[in-house]
Amino acid sequence: MLGIRPLSGETNNWSVAREACFSPEAEVRSRALELYEEVADLPIVSPHGHLSAALFSGDHDHPTDPASLFVTGDHYVTRLLYAHGVPYEELGVPPRDGAAHERDPRQVWRRFCDRFHLFDGTPTGLWLKLTLVRVFGVDERPSAQNADRLFDRLSEALASAEFAPRQLLKRFAVEHLATTDPATASLDDHAACQAAGFGVVPTFRPDALMQLNDPQWTQQLGVLSERVGFTIDSLAAFVEALRRRRLEFRERGATSSDHGVTSAFVDPLDNDHAAVIFDRARSGQVGPEEAGRFHSHMLFEMAHMATEDGLVMQLHLGSLRNHHQRVMERFGPNMGADVPVAVDLTRGLQPLLNAFGHDQRFRLVVYTLDESTYGRELAPLAGHYPALRLGGPWWFHDSVHGIERYLAATAETAGFHKLAGFVDDARSLPTLRARHDVWRRVTCDWLARLELRGLLDAESAPRLANWLAYGAAKDAFRVPSRAAAAAG
Amino acid sequence: MLGIRPLSGETNNWSVAREACFSPEAEVRSRALELYEEVADLPIVSPHGHLSAALFSGDHDHPTDPASLFVTGDHYVTRLLYAHGVPYEELGVPPRDGAAHERDPRQVWRRFCDRFHLFDGTPTGLWLKLTLVRVFGVDERPSAQNADRLFDRLSEALASAEFAPRQLLKRFAVEHLATTDPATASLDDHAACQAAGFGVVPTFRPDALMQLNDPQWTQQLGVLSERVGFTIDSLAAFVEALRRRRLEFRERGATSSDHGVTSAFVDPLDNDHAAVIFDRARSGQVGPEEAGRFHSHMLFEMAHMATEDGLVMQLHLGSLRNHHQRVMERFGPNMGADVPVAVDLTRGLQPLLNAFGHDQRFRLVVYTLDESTYGRELAPLAGHYPALRLGGPWWFHDSVHGIERYLAATAETAGFHKLAGFVDDARSLPTLRARHDVWRRVTCDWLARLELRGLLDAESAPRLANWLAYGAAKDAFRVPSRAAAAAG
Amino acid sequence: MLGIRPLSGETNNWSVAREACFSPEAEVRSRALELYEEVADLPIVSPHGHLSAALFSGDHDHPTDPASLFVTGDHYVTRLLYAHGVPYEELGVPPRDGAAHERDPRQVWRRFCDRFHLFDGTPTGLWLKLTLVRVFGVDERPSAQNADRLFDRLSEALASAEFAPRQLLKRFAVEHLATTDPATASLDDHAACQAAGFGVVPTFRPDALMQLNDPQWTQQLGVLSERVGFTIDSLAAFVEALRRRRLEFRERGATSSDHGVTSAFVDPLDNDHAAVIFDRARSGQVGPEEAGRFHSHMLFEMAHMATEDGLVMQLHLGSLRNHHQRVMERFGPNMGADVPVAVDLTRGLQPLLNAFGHDQRFRLVVYTLDESTYGRELAPLAGHYPALRLGGPWWFHDSVHGIERYLAATAETAGFHKLAGFVDDARSLPTLRARHDVWRRVTCDWLARLELRGLLDAESAPRLANWLAYGAAKDAFRVPSRAAAAAG
Repeated sequence: MLGIRPLSGETNNWSVAREACFSPEAEVRSRALELYEEVADLPIVSPHGHLSAALFSGDHDHPTDPASLFVTGDHYVTRLLYAHGVPYEELGVPPRDGAAHERDPRQVWRRFCDRFHLFDGTPTGLWLKLTLVRVFGVDERPSAQNADRLFDRLSEALASAEFAPRQLLKRFAVEHLATTDPATASLDDHAACQAAGFGVVPTFRPDALMQLNDPQWTQQLGVLSERVGFTIDSLAAFVEALRRRRLEFRERGATSSDHGVTSAFVDPLDNDHAAVIFDRARSGQVGPEEAGRFHSHMLFEMAHMATEDGLVMQLHLGSLRNHHQRVMERFGPNMGADVPVAVDLTRGLQPLLNAFGHDQRFRLVVYTLDESTYGRELAPLAGHYPALRLGGPWWFHDSVHGIERYLAATAETAGFHKLAGFVDDARSLPTLRARHDVWRRVTCDWLARLELRGLLDAESAPRLANWLAYGAAKDAFRVPSRAAAAAG
Repeated sequence: MLGIRPLSGETNNWSVAREACFSPEAEVRSRALELYEEVADLPIVSPHGHLSAALFSGDHDHPTDPASLFVTGDHYVTRLLYAHGVPYEELGVPPRDGAAHERDPRQVWRRFCDRFHLFDGTPTGLWLKLTLVRVFGVDERPSAQNADRLFDRLSEALASAEFAPRQLLKRFAVEHLATTDPATASLDDHAACQAAGFGVVPTFRPDALMQLNDPQWTQQLGVLSERVGFTIDSLAAFVEALRRRRLEFRERGATSSDHGVTSAFVDPLDNDHAAVIFDRARSGQVGPEEAGRFHSHMLFEMAHMATEDGLVMQLHLGSLRNHHQRVMERFGPNMGADVPVAVDLTRGLQPLLNAFGHDQRFRLVVYTLDESTYGRELAPLAGHYPALRLGGPWWFHDSVHGIERYLAATAETAGFHKLAGFVDDARSLPTLRARHDVWRRVTCDWLARLELRGLLDAESAPRLANWLAYGAAKDAFRVPSRAAAAAG
Repeated sequence: MLGIRPLSGETNNWSVAREACFSPEAEVRSRALELYEEVADLPIVSPHGHLSAALFSGDHDHPTDPASLFVTGDHYVTRLLYAHGVPYEELGVPPRDGAAHERDPRQVWRRFCDRFHLFDGTPTGLWLKLTLVRVFGVDERPSAQNADRLFDRLSEALASAEFAPRQLLKRFAVEHLATTDPATASLDDHAACQAAGFGVVPTFRPDALMQLNDPQWTQQLGVLSERVGFTIDSLAAFVEALRRRRLEFRERGATSSDHGVTSAFVDPLDNDHAAVIFDRARSGQVGPEEAGRFHSHMLFEMAHMATEDGLVMQLHLGSLRNHHQRVMERFGPNMGADVPVAVDLTRGLQPLLNAFGHDQRFRLVVYTLDESTYGRELAPLAGHYPALRLGGPWWFHDSVHGIERYLAATAETAGFHKLAGFVDDARSLPTLRARHDVWRRVTCDWLARLELRGLLDAESAPRLANWLAYGAAKDAFRVPSRAAAAAG
């Protein structure tokens, strides 16, 4: 008797049950559903992700074929297909040197549908299912047999006005969407979005300017100089340029900066020492160790600026980027070959937290891929330092079990009110709401379970469900309410 | 329909269900309750905590206002309020320099009640609820509205004879309570307790004497010298003084020593080398690295003494003390700003375990805040070395999920019989029983689940429930039975 | 009312319920049972373990007393008895120096039965129960009272033809059993097994030849030289000898090599440098650090060979062998005193994965005892590199909760199809099937739960149950189907 339908309300077709993601126990499930129904339709606050503002500026559009949108453009998907032996080229990813790659999206889509089982039990598979079923009305599981039919159906939908990016933003009730932008970015697309009434704001991400030994650094410095309108020939000028750009981001609605580093050590240099390194970098004489020390110094400097301009500082810690040299060389970065490493937040963040952790103007949101630090370091730190909030479960851990591990390991020590809510980190617009939906479902299930165990008072669970779904992110990222934002 | 009452037997009032902490599944809950009812009223064996013997000596009393008792004096509570921006001063904590701080406990209590939601889902919140409801009969959740009423009611209770420390000790059925005392402590209060029939015994904690570069070290050495009645002008004399004090502690009922260190490395020096360091320390010429090596040497020496006098050795490993320099300087240590770090028990404890791990006279109880070592290091070590027992879940991990993680990660590898039972680590008398109650509830729930999964024979679960609630701690810490103790 | 029988179908006697290991929730249990019934009787594929081929060659037999088989010969059992103060000598383990030890297996068996409660809740206890009940028909829990009766009953069974090793292999439906063999092994026993129709194949484990500073190394080199028939007087000759032996193993049915190391760093040396070290080792002039570097180099070399001969490379990482020097000296290695340490797979395996991770001819199966690397490192690496599969939960983690942690931390990130299935690592034939049974039960329970939560489509769960029970191991280890093997 295998193959029984597991969830109430599900038909023979591919569908999503009302109780999806909830625990199997009837009582938990029932209470979770009550909690969920109160938060399921709340607006989306998305304080960190990788969509482009251009998508909503009116001048652009997303790809109108499902392969580019759901496969080629999503490194969560391509990495797993590659891991099963499908070359990136066959997934439509162009090699940097212009070598041959699949140019027919239908072929890419077929390869994906044929291997849909590889995503069984993964968050990527869950987001895709939720999106295909709920957003696009697909009612059959992708397979080699129906690949062409789905391709046609989805292509038609994507070409229609109903699925244009701005329409999806409305349909998803996105109240606030922060993009991630280099420090040198023009913010014109954000201006266009806002003029049309969309809460799309930039995030200041100066990583490229802080890596002195990156081959592109000098060129990036030139772009920055152009952007601010003065020559950058000293550390002081560099810092001033970044300060100005932060203010411009802030004026354009940014509420935060974002920084990605492998190590957790954020430690300032003596300023003269930093200035010397900067000067030598301009003539290309800086090695990786010094560059790392300078990066660490600049992060401290960023925290200092944050105490002045109030931008919330996000730290994404512990990813070793571009682990696979061959893939990096052939296809570039962000190909799904960044791999986490262990980090030491307790010692690494001590100088930063000692300097600014008590400062009410400062706010720091830390994300880690090293789950062993959740309970050992991050929650104890956040349970003491006023400035610190725990970033939501990041990347690989933004999954049903990942969210549960996150809640289990952080909330008891830091309390729910030090959690920064959910961050979707989305690179694909159609699946954006699904990611929030999974978070909302899993947190409601979690709270229901706590309540039934007598670990939450009955009044607390609904309040916390709302907090985790909506309030925490607004509060942590200092997102103004729409009315205030309109007036501001 | 939010706000439904989750637990059977609960009324509209604030209350604790019989099944509190149990899993939501009816069968598990039912079996857990059976197990729990057999152990719920067992006497308390508390082999490690931070209550003062003076509290029970007859000459002192606990504070009679609830703010001092439940808020100001409990760094679990103040740290989380501070983490949400309430200055320590406003919580009644006096700065070291005598600067202004809140002196009205009613104001402190109001600030706490107003923020009671910050403790939702935390063990601190759970202990407080269990204590307020079960010990003090409070039947409404603290809030801004009822803060004054609760303050008056609790103050009245605390001033009554019924809630005097000795009365609480009886009411809680505390059979054995080990305090934590410096090596230089007078043990008169313990004598007074014992004379009155209370099983209050000291624990030998020589940390302050083992940190050569602590500014207080020379002064501490002087106190030790006075206590033992001879000059301490060499390592040999120092070791002899400690040995004598250990014996005095033991004669006063101590069954263990306790030691706190950041690193897990316990490694002896050549004795001549150690003697030279000691001599230089007396003239203040020892740096932090040498001091650390000496500390490590002395821990080894303590283990050696333990093989002679039979005191169980407790090691609390992996907390970086006083992480927040500003708070340390202004308010002193133990302000909730100690933060865990990763430790290497396998390599760190190897010299110690190789020297004494097979010795039946020696017993070592290790506590770690690095949960990743539970299954990777601590349980495999305890599953081999006869001398080693696994300390209970410590500090942040003494929570419902923390206990579950502890049991999940240790019991399969080391067996339940290598667990050292529960340690409350309590700093507040009224919540002491609540902490044991949570442990007993969660372990019974755990055992019920194992049994229902066919992972424990039916005869084993009740035996293990009793073991974890009572027998394990007595056995691990060599606590004599009352009769034996009276005779001895 | 303690002592109620927990599982349906259980009588007053010692027995195993059909739903053993399943979750207590009725719906999960019911679906898990459906899934399990489809896979429970599938043949056993055992790609890694420590049984001897001699056991099945027709010339040997297993011990016919239960103490030697279930106690003395199983370091999972002896370590825990030792940890509770029973000397190895009293368990029948002979000291290397010929000192006295228990020679009466009945005494050993009594000591074990008397302490059977020490194994409550451990995987060892579970395997023993499953085996005693299901394989030997024992229906009473071992105890001091029934020890002699059980000893007689089991001795009689073991002496009977029904329980001869080859009979058990048939009864357990073992399709493929890979032993673990030194690089210098004769493969005659495997030939005899295969001639009799048993799928018993060797695994190439050259560890002893790669540890230059092992006192036995020169002697081992001599054996290798004899085996290949040429003088090994250079690194080139050494490498050539290993290559030949790999081919001989492969011809005898081996599909994999196996390698155990403490650290995860696998990094090649310059070949000339390696050759110099090798030459110096031959005159005994190599220290531990150089020996470690050479070992790391040779692992890289092994991976290189694997791209040529197609043997799957197994890496067992992160065990610090022979932690207890005293036990090592007195009884030798493999006494249950190997203890895990933290590892850095991300950086450690980078050179290896960069060189061969994309190569379809290469396959790497990594086992770790550091569970914190499951989700942080191993699953992200396996979710990218085509060559990498995640080895099953190893050693201490091959337990009910260990399997659950493994599935929770790996499957979402790497997908179920990158898991290498189950490895029993068995050292005792009678319990071999029990280990697979526990894996099959726990994975079916896990899949049932996922399905009921809407995280797996109904068609996926039975397919994945089969995959995890049978297909994954065959696929990961390149085990040919029996027909193909017979023809090949």
